[in-house]
Amino acid sequence: MRQSSLFTKTRREAPSDELAKNAQLLIRAGFVHKEMAGVYAYLPLGIKVIENIKKIVREEMDAIGGSEIIMTALQRKELWEQTDRWDDEKVDVWFKSSLKNGTGVGFGWSHEEPITDMMKSYLESYRDLPAFVYQFQTKLRNELRAKSGIMRGREFVMKDMYSYTKDEAAHKAFYDAAIEAYHNVFKRVGLGDRTYLTVASGGAFTQFSHEFQTLDESGEDVIYVHKEKKIAVNKEVLTDEVLAQLDIKRDELEEAKAVEVGNIFSFGDVKSKQLGLLYTAEDGEQKPVILGSYGIGITRLMGTLVEAFADEKGMVWPEAVAPFRYHLVSLAGSDSDIAAFAEAVYEELADAGQAVLYDDRDLRAGEKFADADLIGIPWRVIVGRDAIPGGQVELVNRATGEVQKLTRQELLAR
Amino acid sequence: MRQSSLFTKTRREAPSDELAKNAQLLIRAGFVHKEMAGVYAYLPLGIKVIENIKKIVREEMDAIGGSEIIMTALQRKELWEQTDRWDDEKVDVWFKSSLKNGTGVGFGWSHEEPITDMMKSYLESYRDLPAFVYQFQTKLRNELRAKSGIMRGREFVMKDMYSYTKDEAAHKAFYDAAIEAYHNVFKRVGLGDRTYLTVASGGAFTQFSHEFQTLDESGEDVIYVHKEKKIAVNKEVLTDEVLAQLDIKRDELEEAKAVEVGNIFSFGDVKSKQLGLLYTAEDGEQKPVILGSYGIGITRLMGTLVEAFADEKGMVWPEAVAPFRYHLVSLAGSDSDIAAFAEAVYEELADAGQAVLYDDRDLRAGEKFADADLIGIPWRVIVGRDAIPGGQVELVNRATGEVQKLTRQELLAR
Repeated sequence: MRQSSLFTKTRREAPSDELAKNAQLLIRAGFVHKEMAGVYAYLPLGIKVIENIKKIVREEMDAIGGSEIIMTALQRKELWEQTDRWDDEKVDVWFKSSLKNGTGVGFGWSHEEPITDMMKSYLESYRDLPAFVYQFQTKLRNELRAKSGIMRGREFVMKDMYSYTKDEAAHKAFYDAAIEAYHNVFKRVGLGDRTYLTVASGGAFTQFSHEFQTLDESGEDVIYVHKEKKIAVNKEVLTDEVLAQLDIKRDELEEAKAVEVGNIFSFGDVKSKQLGLLYTAEDGEQKPVILGSYGIGITRLMGTLVEAFADEKGMVWPEAVAPFRYHLVSLAGSDSDIAAFAEAVYEELADAGQAVLYDDRDLRAGEKFADADLIGIPWRVIVGRDAIPGGQVELVNRATGEVQKLTRQELLAR
Repeated sequence: MRQSSLFTKTRREAPSDELAKNAQLLIRAGFVHKEMAGVYAYLPLGIKVIENIKKIVREEMDAIGGSEIIMTALQRKELWEQTDRWDDEKVDVWFKSSLKNGTGVGFGWSHEEPITDMMKSYLESYRDLPAFVYQFQTKLRNELRAKSGIMRGREFVMKDMYSYTKDEAAHKAFYDAAIEAYHNVFKRVGLGDRTYLTVASGGAFTQFSHEFQTLDESGEDVIYVHKEKKIAVNKEVLTDEVLAQLDIKRDELEEAKAVEVGNIFSFGDVKSKQLGLLYTAEDGEQKPVILGSYGIGITRLMGTLVEAFADEKGMVWPEAVAPFRYHLVSLAGSDSDIAAFAEAVYEELADAGQAVLYDDRDLRAGEKFADADLIGIPWRVIVGRDAIPGGQVELVNRATGEVQKLTRQELLAR
């Protein structure tokens, strides 16, 4: 893509009311637009990052048998009353409105209820189980405060998956597979080494739930990390009893701030009983389906990547999610030979299927480099004085600053 | 995909409260789930059709210079007050709610206002123009009645595009390009021969707007079609004056019911003036940006395809949008040789990158065929008695019923 055709521009300053580093950088670089506190639109560069993250998550969810669906924002009051989660005293993040005939409706802040209710149409016998469904859904939550940029929004994208199994053994098998799939996701987006499977409090059904916590100063959570065992314990369950259960000593743990990028938990048969999701077992008996729930905050993950990798010059995207792989910067100025060389490099990379942002704008080198640093594409290809007659480009790694001189052929061969 | 792993099932009956043919068939076949009137979730087969339609629309919008973005559901009251479209007397489809601090918010039923307001951050000079942006957005509209299935929903997916140009000439050039792109979209999804560019009433700025109307009995609109000239006139502008302008005689027109699958219109400089989207022209003067708006109802288009092509046995998907290209039906029964043959055909087609739904279920042939007819995948591949020892499969065209006998090699070579 030619940068001259990108309608967004970089800015020197973030809006004064934006406190979070992730949103400051994303707004300055033109990835997102702030509609109101906690509500962001995603612009061409931002939507590419979102789609790259979704692609990785989709592949990992499909690999463990997930089927993609998409539920609705509009929610029926009666349904949520059945599980006692309609009342604002019980759930304090509802946005509510009403149909023309006065019927109350809510806007989906979570989707266990409608998916589980829908499943009553499809899961009738043990032969229909297990079933694993997931969606990428825009959640709407009426948060009191929203000051963490895209990491805690009033409107945000979440991948939520639900498992429907016939018994505890089948549930446990999928739960464990989901843990592996989640590890794969965080590894692939570049956060593997700082993301910890974290023991957290369970609900009515199980003692524990599990969070995936990424160590970062921007995090709202405090966890206790066992680096050697590569697990962590959430503050809320840090008791001697739990430590003994996990075979961990208190002095082996390090306190750290972290971002909850994923969570998985068991609903057991509670919700199935409330909503009447029963199946006919092999023995002819009617039994409640066992439900598990598995979330990854897609936009939060994007914000976490900004927080985790940004430096003083701007963002640094891991290659797997970057909006483009290469940022081709032409320093041709008025030299038409260098300009033609840069055009040729752009065409070659594009023809080879590489994602390239081509800075073809008529600006000074310093401005172009500042923009490129801010935008944070992993590999910068500089076409300048070495191009003619030397035929070389400079390849700069955004994360390390390392510079290599390459010919066009060597660049293409990478 | 193995049909045994699909959690949805077909049903003989549609819900009794569902009046629209499109929703009846989509629900019976397991493509969609009705959450409430006019509000549908999309299940694995349904989401594939949506994504196929979006892919075609995305390619055509990108081809004319569109940049994809995604705006927000939550809308600021103050913004819509600036254009006098907040009041329920002026816009009667708002869903409204409020933040914890009492600030009123609405849910996006349209997005001209927020996109145009956002553009004030990016379009400052004639050098920044033109800009063309589009999104696939879930629109929320508080419709009084919703009884046309997925063709008029309270929650639906729309592609809306906006053009920002510096003058009428640039606007007209893009407007014409958009008409061509829209024709391409409707041609590619299989509705080209029954979709008419239709002259409709304009707004404050232009005499006419343009609709794309697909002839179908399920349509809510009445248009007057000039088959030879391949254009139509909406009832609302059918006057002698307009006919004279278009050089059409009244007796050359045929009245027909039609579905509005797309529309394009000019806002002129009205909204830019209201919201203060001004640019500095070449001569240094501040001028309002010219705005055009271009919509395609993605879910409505999906419903229209069902209505247009379904027969008494079920749906008939055009190849470009079908959830799968092939429906492989194994009639192996207890014959393990035929079963192995079917498995091999499945693997071969899948390896060749073909999208195949493989009916590997243990059901009678009649049930499998009834399901396949209902689901409506374009090509059915039947593996039955001709497989062993003849090595042949039957290829049946869902639309025409035409049958061919092919070897596996011949099937793969298609």
